[in-house]
Amino acid sequence: MELISIEDVRVAADDIAGTIVRTPLLPAPWGDELWLKPESLQPVGSFKLRGATHAVARLDPAARSRGVVTHSSGNHGQALAYAARAFGVPCTVVVPEGAPQVKVDRIRALGAEVVLVAPARRLAEAERIAADTGAALVPPFDDRRIIAGQGTVGLEIVADLADVDVVLVPVGGGGLSSGVATAVKALRPSAAVIGVEPALAADARDSLAAGEVVVWDVERTYRTSADGLRTNLSELTLAHLRARLDGIVTVTEEEIALAMGRLARDARLVVEPSGAVAVAARLFHRDELPTGRAAAVITGGNVDPAVLASALTA
Amino acid sequence: MELISIEDVRVAADDIAGTIVRTPLLPAPWGDELWLKPESLQPVGSFKLRGATHAVARLDPAARSRGVVTHSSGNHGQALAYAARAFGVPCTVVVPEGAPQVKVDRIRALGAEVVLVAPARRLAEAERIAADTGAALVPPFDDRRIIAGQGTVGLEIVADLADVDVVLVPVGGGGLSSGVATAVKALRPSAAVIGVEPALAADARDSLAAGEVVVWDVERTYRTSADGLRTNLSELTLAHLRARLDGIVTVTEEEIALAMGRLARDARLVVEPSGAVAVAARLFHRDELPTGRAAAVITGGNVDPAVLASALTA
Repeated sequence: MELISIEDVRVAADDIAGTIVRTPLLPAPWGDELWLKPESLQPVGSFKLRGATHAVARLDPAARSRGVVTHSSGNHGQALAYAARAFGVPCTVVVPEGAPQVKVDRIRALGAEVVLVAPARRLAEAERIAADTGAALVPPFDDRRIIAGQGTVGLEIVADLADVDVVLVPVGGGGLSSGVATAVKALRPSAAVIGVEPALAADARDSLAAGEVVVWDVERTYRTSADGLRTNLSELTLAHLRARLDGIVTVTEEEIALAMGRLARDARLVVEPSGAVAVAARLFHRDELPTGRAAAVITGGNVDPAVLASALTA
Repeated sequence: MELISIEDVRVAADDIAGTIVRTPLLPAPWGDELWLKPESLQPVGSFKLRGATHAVARLDPAARSRGVVTHSSGNHGQALAYAARAFGVPCTVVVPEGAPQVKVDRIRALGAEVVLVAPARRLAEAERIAADTGAALVPPFDDRRIIAGQGTVGLEIVADLADVDVVLVPVGGGGLSSGVATAVKALRPSAAVIGVEPALAADARDSLAAGEVVVWDVERTYRTSADGLRTNLSELTLAHLRARLDGIVTVTEEEIALAMGRLARDARLVVEPSGAVAVAARLFHRDELPTGRAAAVITGGNVDPAVLASALTA
């Protein structure tokens, strides 16, 4: 399987400049040779905007007029709606019935059409819309353009901290980690790229150990608070991670909550559980990590206010 | 009285590059032609790091070896300690007895010496230390170097949003607002620079109306939650504001709390009450402001976790 290259990531960086926020790399206020890459500051609150913007930017003019479609009630749905609006492209988001109304409202506020279906019919409905209307289906991670777009996070980390030794990146479906590992290992081969997962959704760890995609079903992964990391890898992302990731570490639910509180109190960042796992790994599993200057990717900040309030005072 | 110039601000920008974070200008996720300048992301959690760093950088080698001293239990004390450490300069911070232990601990953790005195003796003690040791006294705002350093916030806003129409800036002692007005009016004369104060500490509004420094005593100003904005202007800052500020708006305590909650929930930023007033002005006093593309300075994020938790769910 052909993997994406650093050139693909560079093309994505050019595509998305001006639409996404060029996030700073913040020294962790508690020192300790740690830097934070706060993708929570993107307009839709997550790194997903990078891949979605690149995917929309790559469409040719005819395809743009037919629009884009995806199936996601989460950060990718909002990101695609935002990117589509930025490029003047029609967007449809297929959302499972029962999704929180606030998420549906946010997608609609970004100008996208929302189609509600039974959860099991999400993918089929998105594919039907694509077939009927000619809209381009933009999946959340199993896509070379998406991986290249997310990889711009790694490009920026190395640009801002040229002597980085360790990059810590959350692993859900593997789009972000595949892209970041591609960029970092190309630009700074001596740096280690380490994936981080909740112990309650450690399917990527198992997949890397087995050398094939190991599926953790939803009955297991729903137990983690890190809802953005419940997804399993695809063949494409597993191939990238096998070739380019240096290791994987898992963190507990308590460690995730403590990292969220630490980030809010000391780094003044509102972070969702999925977004806090890389910092949790550095705070609580340092003995499992390579030494040196570390950068942790904070993937997003779309957290229930009550959950954040509880983490703040924990 | 000679005012600082845009050239002074440019010199400061060169001095502080590499020590401070070059904060991004974030589009407010709720749109509305508003951009946020999150100085809460500086390592010590406030814009104060800019002026303090510039002041330390300007010391000649002999003065550096004698160190710096200030009197502040708040953001300026931490900022000076951080800047001094960055330049390898000894630092003493005079802190009033009764200041929160967490603030004392943070200043000490940055390597500064803390001297505890009765609140009324703070300034005298700092002056005594300066006289005895030859350390340079670095005041929190009544200083041309400090004003120039804080002005770099304005420089960056215009660099990132060249067609900005309105810049909203909190007013405490007036160092930040003086510097920002200097930079913005020099680079984009058509933009309006509007100061924002709590209604419970509206001494700058009164001073501008009277044409002289009007002092609100501590019995009045302690009532606002915006503890960074309780300070009165100096002759120096009033002179800058009279010449360069286009107006001033006041906000209520309820509006401040609502803006803090909005920033945490929707912009994923942890903001202290003083840091939220400019956004509060845009949210709740838009009819008092010039129209167009607005940038709001978010001055800091050092907030009691319980206060933030309460604002989150308000």
